[in-house]
Amino acid sequence: MASNMASKKDIRLITFDLDNTLWDVEPIVARAEKTMRDWIRAEHPGFVARFDFREFSRLRHAVVTERHDIAHDLTALRTEVLRRAFVEGGYTASEAEVAAVNAFDVFYAGRNTVEYFPGALEALTVLGRDFRLCALSNGNADIQRVGLGHLFSGHFSAASVGAAKPDPRIYLAALAASGVTPAQAIHVGDHPEQDIAAAAGVGMRTVWVNFTDQVWPDLPPADAEITGFDELVPVIRRLAGV
Amino acid sequence: MASNMASKKDIRLITFDLDNTLWDVEPIVARAEKTMRDWIRAEHPGFVARFDFREFSRLRHAVVTERHDIAHDLTALRTEVLRRAFVEGGYTASEAEVAAVNAFDVFYAGRNTVEYFPGALEALTVLGRDFRLCALSNGNADIQRVGLGHLFSGHFSAASVGAAKPDPRIYLAALAASGVTPAQAIHVGDHPEQDIAAAAGVGMRTVWVNFTDQVWPDLPPADAEITGFDELVPVIRRLAGV
Repeated sequence: MASNMASKKDIRLITFDLDNTLWDVEPIVARAEKTMRDWIRAEHPGFVARFDFREFSRLRHAVVTERHDIAHDLTALRTEVLRRAFVEGGYTASEAEVAAVNAFDVFYAGRNTVEYFPGALEALTVLGRDFRLCALSNGNADIQRVGLGHLFSGHFSAASVGAAKPDPRIYLAALAASGVTPAQAIHVGDHPEQDIAAAAGVGMRTVWVNFTDQVWPDLPPADAEITGFDELVPVIRRLAGV
Repeated sequence: MASNMASKKDIRLITFDLDNTLWDVEPIVARAEKTMRDWIRAEHPGFVARFDFREFSRLRHAVVTERHDIAHDLTALRTEVLRRAFVEGGYTASEAEVAAVNAFDVFYAGRNTVEYFPGALEALTVLGRDFRLCALSNGNADIQRVGLGHLFSGHFSAASVGAAKPDPRIYLAALAASGVTPAQAIHVGDHPEQDIAAAAGVGMRTVWVNFTDQVWPDLPPADAEITGFDELVPVIRRLAGV
């Protein structure tokens, strides 16, 4: 009993998924894509006259199929799709490279303009006083640009690690870089397999973020579940035994 | 006579101004600003409801007056103006910082989507076979993003050097980094004082780019003048004595 209490009090690291855990990602990506297409229409009217935007999905499928080397790097994937589109629209290789990088940048500015779930930043600020916080995601959000740079000590992403959740490597990299054991860490995320089962698989404790009234699938349950960010600080304190 | 010929044949470096020398910059900046404002309207409707865009010119004046430390860095200036605008629009310091960086990125993607003057890239490609080429500008174009990365060995800008043309330091930095004497270098630019008089002042030869039928002011003339990029390669070969 006493040793169990001591172990509970030794939580040092809390890792957070980003997309759909700290903010709703679908409207952000949809809006960023629209902005990027508007930008392409304004800046590259000659290209637009020759290229049908509906071809993007075919190009995306081709790139995902052919380029396993960049499969986990959403920035590289998206830029490659754009590059191929500009080539199909009649641009030279170097023109297409330049246009793709600039178009991606417009997308990326929107992709990092997020609206946090209510209470998310407040909860992170409070937890940051007692715990090391770290992002652990499959997406390509930039923790500096979304305004988390002062709160998070790092970001382990599918692109930076070269493997996507539920692969345990991304969790193990965050633990190793933070110098903590799995038992000293809690992962917070929305996805039953990628976040909860994967983190539990390496020995971390888990908090399931369930803001959309999902039904838990046929998997071992998370250590805790929250339905709003006002619940996070007390839940973490309970799991940490403090 | 013989030694003069030998000296002429020793041209090794050609430096180029960018804005208004390789492309017309005013429509690019105007379009990029419009795109950025459209982006702000789409991504930050709450801010737009509280902030009048006409206030940007007042903020720009205030920043230019107060922030001499970033006077030569157009990227820093523009981002600071945006940051102050978001603060005036009710954002917290960190929200404003994030919004300003993302808004600047949209501007910057457009600012680097340039349309070269006819024949410019062809002339640079030909000259790049025989000479080291280098950008030397007061503006904040990115030579990689505008598609010059493979042609230019470097870019000395007012922001990177900390002084703007006609200050000789920006020219001296390019010469020093390239390991050439002023007599071994030719500068190509559109501005009589900032490009031609300043480059001549450090001992470089000069080519005046005059595509808009300007009248030469009361200054010593350039070594050559061109009215289109088809004239550049023969002019450089003549100056270089090859």
